[in-house]
Amino acid sequence: MKRKMILDCDTGHDDAIALMVASKHPNIDLLGVTVVAGNQTLPKTLKNTLNVCDHLGLDVPVYAGMSLPLVRKQYVADDVHGESGLDGPVFGPCNKKAEDKHAVLYLIETLMNSDGDITLVPVGPLTNIAMAIRLEPRIVDKIQEIVLMGGAINLGNATPAAEFNIYADPEAAQIVFSSGVKITMMGLDLTNTVLANMQIIERMEALGNKAGKLFGDIMRFTFKSQAVNGLEAGPVHDVTAVTYLIAPEIYKTKDMFVEVDTNIYGPSYGRTLCDFNNRYHKKANATIGLSLDLDAFWNIVEDTLRKHN
Amino acid sequence: MKRKMILDCDTGHDDAIALMVASKHPNIDLLGVTVVAGNQTLPKTLKNTLNVCDHLGLDVPVYAGMSLPLVRKQYVADDVHGESGLDGPVFGPCNKKAEDKHAVLYLIETLMNSDGDITLVPVGPLTNIAMAIRLEPRIVDKIQEIVLMGGAINLGNATPAAEFNIYADPEAAQIVFSSGVKITMMGLDLTNTVLANMQIIERMEALGNKAGKLFGDIMRFTFKSQAVNGLEAGPVHDVTAVTYLIAPEIYKTKDMFVEVDTNIYGPSYGRTLCDFNNRYHKKANATIGLSLDLDAFWNIVEDTLRKHN
Amino acid sequence: MKRKMILDCDTGHDDAIALMVASKHPNIDLLGVTVVAGNQTLPKTLKNTLNVCDHLGLDVPVYAGMSLPLVRKQYVADDVHGESGLDGPVFGPCNKKAEDKHAVLYLIETLMNSDGDITLVPVGPLTNIAMAIRLEPRIVDKIQEIVLMGGAINLGNATPAAEFNIYADPEAAQIVFSSGVKITMMGLDLTNTVLANMQIIERMEALGNKAGKLFGDIMRFTFKSQAVNGLEAGPVHDVTAVTYLIAPEIYKTKDMFVEVDTNIYGPSYGRTLCDFNNRYHKKANATIGLSLDLDAFWNIVEDTLRKHN
Amino acid sequence: MKRKMILDCDTGHDDAIALMVASKHPNIDLLGVTVVAGNQTLPKTLKNTLNVCDHLGLDVPVYAGMSLPLVRKQYVADDVHGESGLDGPVFGPCNKKAEDKHAVLYLIETLMNSDGDITLVPVGPLTNIAMAIRLEPRIVDKIQEIVLMGGAINLGNATPAAEFNIYADPEAAQIVFSSGVKITMMGLDLTNTVLANMQIIERMEALGNKAGKLFGDIMRFTFKSQAVNGLEAGPVHDVTAVTYLIAPEIYKTKDMFVEVDTNIYGPSYGRTLCDFNNRYHKKANATIGLSLDLDAFWNIVEDTLRKHN
Repeated sequence: MKRKMILDCDTGHDDAIALMVASKHPNIDLLGVTVVAGNQTLPKTLKNTLNVCDHLGLDVPVYAGMSLPLVRKQYVADDVHGESGLDGPVFGPCNKKAEDKHAVLYLIETLMNSDGDITLVPVGPLTNIAMAIRLEPRIVDKIQEIVLMGGAINLGNATPAAEFNIYADPEAAQIVFSSGVKITMMGLDLTNTVLANMQIIERMEALGNKAGKLFGDIMRFTFKSQAVNGLEAGPVHDVTAVTYLIAPEIYKTKDMFVEVDTNIYGPSYGRTLCDFNNRYHKKANATIGLSLDLDAFWNIVEDTLRKHN
Repeated sequence: MKRKMILDCDTGHDDAIALMVASKHPNIDLLGVTVVAGNQTLPKTLKNTLNVCDHLGLDVPVYAGMSLPLVRKQYVADDVHGESGLDGPVFGPCNKKAEDKHAVLYLIETLMNSDGDITLVPVGPLTNIAMAIRLEPRIVDKIQEIVLMGGAINLGNATPAAEFNIYADPEAAQIVFSSGVKITMMGLDLTNTVLANMQIIERMEALGNKAGKLFGDIMRFTFKSQAVNGLEAGPVHDVTAVTYLIAPEIYKTKDMFVEVDTNIYGPSYGRTLCDFNNRYHKKANATIGLSLDLDAFWNIVEDTLRKHN
Repeated sequence: MKRKMILDCDTGHDDAIALMVASKHPNIDLLGVTVVAGNQTLPKTLKNTLNVCDHLGLDVPVYAGMSLPLVRKQYVADDVHGESGLDGPVFGPCNKKAEDKHAVLYLIETLMNSDGDITLVPVGPLTNIAMAIRLEPRIVDKIQEIVLMGGAINLGNATPAAEFNIYADPEAAQIVFSSGVKITMMGLDLTNTVLANMQIIERMEALGNKAGKLFGDIMRFTFKSQAVNGLEAGPVHDVTAVTYLIAPEIYKTKDMFVEVDTNIYGPSYGRTLCDFNNRYHKKANATIGLSLDLDAFWNIVEDTLRKHN
Repeated sequence: MKRKMILDCDTGHDDAIALMVASKHPNIDLLGVTVVAGNQTLPKTLKNTLNVCDHLGLDVPVYAGMSLPLVRKQYVADDVHGESGLDGPVFGPCNKKAEDKHAVLYLIETLMNSDGDITLVPVGPLTNIAMAIRLEPRIVDKIQEIVLMGGAINLGNATPAAEFNIYADPEAAQIVFSSGVKITMMGLDLTNTVLANMQIIERMEALGNKAGKLFGDIMRFTFKSQAVNGLEAGPVHDVTAVTYLIAPEIYKTKDMFVEVDTNIYGPSYGRTLCDFNNRYHKKANATIGLSLDLDAFWNIVEDTLRKHN
């Protein structure tokens, strides 16, 4: 049976690949794509999302969401994703349009009309999800699971304390983690190991279709820009949240209590404090991805990209 | 010319009187009433609002809004307003119903369709207003002014640092104060001087109509419950925000820079830091009410209550 | 019986006058003067203290103490006290020398060798006192009382939240307030009402002695510099802590729980949160001065200055 | 040439072994031992230190220091080190006495009288060192280097954010890290890899002397108690700071900027924020130990223990 999901993204390089996988894998029924500000401002992340859909001929509906974080001043990742938020690939004119409805209202309506069988996969700041939860608290009981990319047990990447997606909206993240919804988190500890090195890039390009070509254009750019985090190649962070829905068995995870440091004035703002050793003796509220079978992962990505044009 | 306003309230004793004044003063065109959790939970503040409208035959539309603050754990003022949030008066069965639309969506639609001539008068936590600003940032240019009851230059009442309305949702308050909208704030420094003592209560009851009787039932309750803040009688905090629209000339005010302490973990959480002496040399973002001509104020209240049934 | 006291100061205009009163009032036995960085850096506050002693022929021993606050970055009040920390009066060459012993060690030794009958009167940042308490915790039971100038129930003067002495070392202040020692606090709410206006200045100058002349030279300077806090004349903050030992009956006070906001990153850092209305239901740890009989106060000052050369 | 050092400890299991190594290695001239509250209260950590010295016949002078952290409420590690702070070994009556001088004053005097050739090795909370720096700021230029055990780049052990030694006095730690002294930090990332497993314990016991026996008695206790941090055997954290003075070449290190989260109210209080990837572009203020040649390390420990009785 297909798993129903909504992808919430701030496209972004790895977001684009997450979208490629989510839109074509046979086990996933991608109901819609909601867009949020994050890697870049909302107009740019929306444009990038529409460009990818248009370029690959995806007919999934796209909804524009929150343009600003809940409380903090906006912080974007132009040092990693460039001026457009998706520097690297070049797209032609775009015919794809966003739906009229606000992403937050789309989330609320879709969830309230569902049988509780929809999984949310947010791979950007959690602003859309948190706003939806606050505007209509009853959706909490309607979300099957949230599988998100964000946070870190260990070092952050936006600051020494914080991973970018959480740092870009810590209050939203804390709302999500404390919501009572089943949460699975793919943090940097896992995602920084999933690198698209030259061998991987060439393997995807060898597919010979638009999707493989786009993968290459995207990851050749991040191949260079990720030096800032001391990595040898660009990680495909967001994709790991999508593949978790497809093949959870290739992940090693651990349940633990997670809270977000929401001290807006302090140096640890946006840190996901993961109680790995259960020092607090609190009930776990999240399943944290620790590692992943890389071979199996890249096979899924390759097989799915092959299904594209 | 009538001044268009939307009253945003968490009814509440003084909220009820604010509603009585706003709904019948000839200079005010009360477009709608939006309700928020605050003095009590949303079901209770909504019920209280509907009861007051029903009892006095007010046909203004009422919209239910946010049931929880943006980020913090809910904090209600049952020590002041009692179990129902409006202990004291007894109401019969209520025929008035809330509209179907969410208060936040009502605010956005009404403002976006307006000519920029609507003033918001929030007299509870600022959750509805902040959510509307975040969900549709363009309303910022459509709000004529926000005249709010909340905050304090000096001592708080919920904690030594913080006034209740701000303490109940500090992040929402900071969103509003930093929004760029013209803000006028009636804080405790002013509102704690506006007390409904026995003389005032008997004067309103002497009007002999339902409104005067309701004023008496309400303020006789707060007459006692306000001992907690060392006051001799119940203050009618929220009313001062409404009468400011009617007669700004009876107020003494001062422009200054205000920010809200949003350190969720600290003892000053929810404090409105008012730079009275301009130590920061920042541009003023709020007009703060310092004092009020009490005689003129009570005359307005009496004259308006007289217009009710 | 004379009251034994040690004056801990960061001289400073009002500190100088506190020293004049403490050193000559017949009811006070001034054992020593300890100096701390505050209004200016330690070399300057020490020099100012020695200058005043030398100029007036005071033979009280002077001890140099802490040059930096416990934790925070140093913050001085050169906007109020000028480049020297005591701008205004001009002193000749100074023969008075500081003792060799560190002020913190002097405090510990003197207190440990005492019968528990010494009152500390800190009128600058509380760094010396806090360091002594931490280095030798047993002095807590040896201090008769701490009567300090600092803090505020309402508005601060260094920031909207914080009074200067507390803001200059919030952690030290919190150590003192939570130490268990009997604390009496003269905050801005009281001290900002004790202004040396022109009438007062001329009255002291009319004494015709060095002390009266020095009072005039000092307060004519602050007469102007205090405009920053919206006052009509210079307040003699620190003096009120000394006169409390002489005539507590001229003060109106209230006991309450006080804590200091020690969130080093936040806008309320250094605020003395005074639970005036006992919202926390915690045991009072301080007696707060609310007001003072100004006539009686200035009579004490005048009578004591008259005893000087 | 021997390296002059002062060991500052809160004995403690691993502290005891650090003391064994520091006191007998031919390359180290152990001038004195200063004791601080930490793993247990000061009376207990002092007693443990004297017991170890007495048992092994060490004639190094021992000085009692700070009994409380600078600002925070005391927090001890009785869950790891037991009721005595050194549960496990049994000592006979102790003839060794602490010196009369306070550890902080000993540090100041010794450093001020030195040629700047003394290294401090603090392996407990940094209270003594921070107090000395504040009481006599000129020692900063006299300290050759501080090689400390404490902090973590990744997960803490006292909380998810903080390592015990730093958590027990975050403000002291921040004073040390921001002092300008050359700092080398052995944090959990390195020390949690240095485990005294059964093979190691038996190897040291096989030395057949008092020191080997004591090593065994100590580490057999921590062998069990460290399960709380998910380790397979007891780590000898503190020893790695001592052996760094002996053989820095067996360490892999990295220079970076480190600051301590001193938000006393927040969940990240006491975290050492290590800017591993230089996101802040600030000048490095610490050298952080990343890993260690374990074989070489245990050889040093064994060789040094052999020199004991």
